[in-house]
Amino acid sequence: MPTRPDAPTEQARGSRVRRRSLLTGLLATPLAAVAGPAQAEEAPRVAVARRPRRKPREVTLYAADLPDGAGWGFGLEPGEPTVPGPTLEMVEGETLRVTVVNQATTTVSLHVHGVDYDIDSDGTPMNGGTVAPGAERTYVWRSHAPHRRRDRTWASGSAGYWHYHDHSVGSDHGTMGVQKGLYGALVVRRPGDPLPDQQIVCVFADVIVNGMPAGQAPTFHSRLGDRVEWIMITHGELFHTFHLHGHRWADNRTGLVQDARDESRLLDTRVTGPADSFGFQVIAGERVGPGAWMYHCHVQHHSDFGMAGHWHIADEGHPHH
Amino acid sequence: MPTRPDAPTEQARGSRVRRRSLLTGLLATPLAAVAGPAQAEEAPRVAVARRPRRKPREVTLYAADLPDGAGWGFGLEPGEPTVPGPTLEMVEGETLRVTVVNQATTTVSLHVHGVDYDIDSDGTPMNGGTVAPGAERTYVWRSHAPHRRRDRTWASGSAGYWHYHDHSVGSDHGTMGVQKGLYGALVVRRPGDPLPDQQIVCVFADVIVNGMPAGQAPTFHSRLGDRVEWIMITHGELFHTFHLHGHRWADNRTGLVQDARDESRLLDTRVTGPADSFGFQVIAGERVGPGAWMYHCHVQHHSDFGMAGHWHIADEGHPHH
Amino acid sequence: MPTRPDAPTEQARGSRVRRRSLLTGLLATPLAAVAGPAQAEEAPRVAVARRPRRKPREVTLYAADLPDGAGWGFGLEPGEPTVPGPTLEMVEGETLRVTVVNQATTTVSLHVHGVDYDIDSDGTPMNGGTVAPGAERTYVWRSHAPHRRRDRTWASGSAGYWHYHDHSVGSDHGTMGVQKGLYGALVVRRPGDPLPDQQIVCVFADVIVNGMPAGQAPTFHSRLGDRVEWIMITHGELFHTFHLHGHRWADNRTGLVQDARDESRLLDTRVTGPADSFGFQVIAGERVGPGAWMYHCHVQHHSDFGMAGHWHIADEGHPHH
Repeated sequence: MPTRPDAPTEQARGSRVRRRSLLTGLLATPLAAVAGPAQAEEAPRVAVARRPRRKPREVTLYAADLPDGAGWGFGLEPGEPTVPGPTLEMVEGETLRVTVVNQATTTVSLHVHGVDYDIDSDGTPMNGGTVAPGAERTYVWRSHAPHRRRDRTWASGSAGYWHYHDHSVGSDHGTMGVQKGLYGALVVRRPGDPLPDQQIVCVFADVIVNGMPAGQAPTFHSRLGDRVEWIMITHGELFHTFHLHGHRWADNRTGLVQDARDESRLLDTRVTGPADSFGFQVIAGERVGPGAWMYHCHVQHHSDFGMAGHWHIADEGHPHH
Repeated sequence: MPTRPDAPTEQARGSRVRRRSLLTGLLATPLAAVAGPAQAEEAPRVAVARRPRRKPREVTLYAADLPDGAGWGFGLEPGEPTVPGPTLEMVEGETLRVTVVNQATTTVSLHVHGVDYDIDSDGTPMNGGTVAPGAERTYVWRSHAPHRRRDRTWASGSAGYWHYHDHSVGSDHGTMGVQKGLYGALVVRRPGDPLPDQQIVCVFADVIVNGMPAGQAPTFHSRLGDRVEWIMITHGELFHTFHLHGHRWADNRTGLVQDARDESRLLDTRVTGPADSFGFQVIAGERVGPGAWMYHCHVQHHSDFGMAGHWHIADEGHPHH
Repeated sequence: MPTRPDAPTEQARGSRVRRRSLLTGLLATPLAAVAGPAQAEEAPRVAVARRPRRKPREVTLYAADLPDGAGWGFGLEPGEPTVPGPTLEMVEGETLRVTVVNQATTTVSLHVHGVDYDIDSDGTPMNGGTVAPGAERTYVWRSHAPHRRRDRTWASGSAGYWHYHDHSVGSDHGTMGVQKGLYGALVVRRPGDPLPDQQIVCVFADVIVNGMPAGQAPTFHSRLGDRVEWIMITHGELFHTFHLHGHRWADNRTGLVQDARDESRLLDTRVTGPADSFGFQVIAGERVGPGAWMYHCHVQHHSDFGMAGHWHIADEGHPHH
């Protein structure tokens, strides 16, 4: 039975996961530290990412065929592949040991973006990183905080909205694997980063959204005022412009501005292409209220073809941010 | 008779508008505050965006057919559609009430990027936001300054180089509308942002520039030393790389660096795709002098096809920045 | 005999150049200034870009036909064209006088991105900037540091990962010139910027990498722990997503974070298109060790076609950063 990561994870296609209750040992951060005592009584502070765990964490991904030969997917349980696969999370400094148990009928692999790994965890055929049907293999992903090198320059940390995918099905680059479902999101947080109430993963793979039949796109549902984290990943051959109605984000690591002087560009439309990924948190319906807010590719023939869905934001009467 | 917004606006296809004389009540800003008295006597400080007006502002956009069935456009006067449509402006905190009077022969709508609106101002067919021929409809656009939420996180402001467009002609996504002229720029400024002497709006809609006949592109004219604001919008199906000769800008909200330590990437070429928009201010001919400076898409077959024009910068002997 | 620039330059296709020994007169910078005396004894500080030279520097580029009619290239010596051409460098404030001696059988020109030049150094046919076979022409490129204008706004500096290319062969936009080899990198540094141990220039021109035969891509070799500067340039008709395994960079001017609070987005995959360029420094194999690390376009049919190569990082036992 697989061990889930401590801070899982979104269910594919828009279901809601309450996150804050799962978190313990919250770190006091500069974000929170500026709030005076009176203000702290007025409203709850945002929950933030905890310190990294020193002990490596374990997760098992089961690769399996999708029904009707539609492709393959990764899942946290045997025989329950999802498209996209489970969203995995790390806090900078943590190590994740990901064991792929291959119950699919084809050789697969696991290649990850953004984090540190030795060459034998590269997940490419040329580096011997594949998993035959019936076999399993453990990939070790490490992460690190920003730090100063001995030569006085700064090394960036690992935090970001990253992703993992097959790198072997159909070609040495996993062209069929990423076309047919073998991918998922990886979020690496910095201690103190705000935690979302809900995550939405949206994958454009050619003109397909989250592995849905061509011409369709999933509907996502959120509660007005919730802090919703969008994670957007592109795969395949095409370029897109991801657009979200009524909400926008900053063009930086977190999608959030740091203060009133932050000069990051604000976006509600962003050019993306194969293996590019980004993410951001927005307050659902902030200043715009409930409704059926569209998300879509803004390449016109893509949206006309069906790369367009709705984000239903419902007012359930809970306190807003 | 329509009420124009207070801080208009560019004429389509490159004509020059003097802006500073239109502005009153300039706000003292950190930008200006650092200048000592002696320096202030030496040279005029840049004019900056004023504080937001509390009262909603009104503007009427007349949708009309273009001559010879070439498409449709928005204009500030009846029967005077332009491509691109009028450039609208807001200061963060302002509300703009935009009434579309549809004098065209097709149903149109108005969808805006970047600012706040209730779902009934979304401008999409699915949210009932269209305007039939002969009808009119008022869309309400709000904007806001960056501010701290009750949970201690920061919300970004609305400032940016945004745009508006039809979302209904030819498809539920306005594919024919944006192909045939129903779009324009929206600039949202932060109080204290520098104001330009001139604005140039450049729209790449597939291989067409500013609605000109295929294979042609407009010529823009500026005065050496003027502060010129470029607003670049893309529509349609294709991706481009916008390139401007002899001038460059920062990859952030304003296109301007904040000080000598600003590490924003400098650009003179930028990947763009459908519904992406960006803007920047440059001093015309700064350090490079007068001349016919090219702007073009750098996708080679696009520029060879005619997505290339000139920016004529003439030395008229006025004081430089 | 040509005068080489003072801070050359990469050899095409991945050979290694030791840079630090070439540099003199290093500037004391904030980067270095924070190191205490004890720390300074422990490890060498990174070498940084010096102050600009006041006297214009001279370089000669010889344009020549490539063997077997494969195209044309620029070289630092007569009859030795390379693809990409020589990497040129400037420090902000310097002027580079580039003389093109055209020994090729076609008229060529030299257009540069990012730096300052009068219109007669624009390198376009319309501005009379071409060089006939057998002729030569000197282009003057200037650069400048960030500075405050008299109106109190800031002008950005010239520092960046730029490039030069023909703007005349095959069309007024140099479509055949950039398809067939007439391009190279230009790095403009800010005094105090870290200097690399090695440079790798990688040019995607349609589906061709660094002018190699279709379906092939060069192999690059580095030493574990070396500070390696990647300079990535795109030309032609297509868009790509450049991906590097096991290493990542910041989405800003230098690709480096400034400190632990820097919120620049980290990338290991980046959308790019014709005439876009970017660069970054990474420590080869930092935290991931030696191996054959892939670099490739992540558009799947591009990588499957051969837009994928290896970066061999070997542990030669020298001290790491």
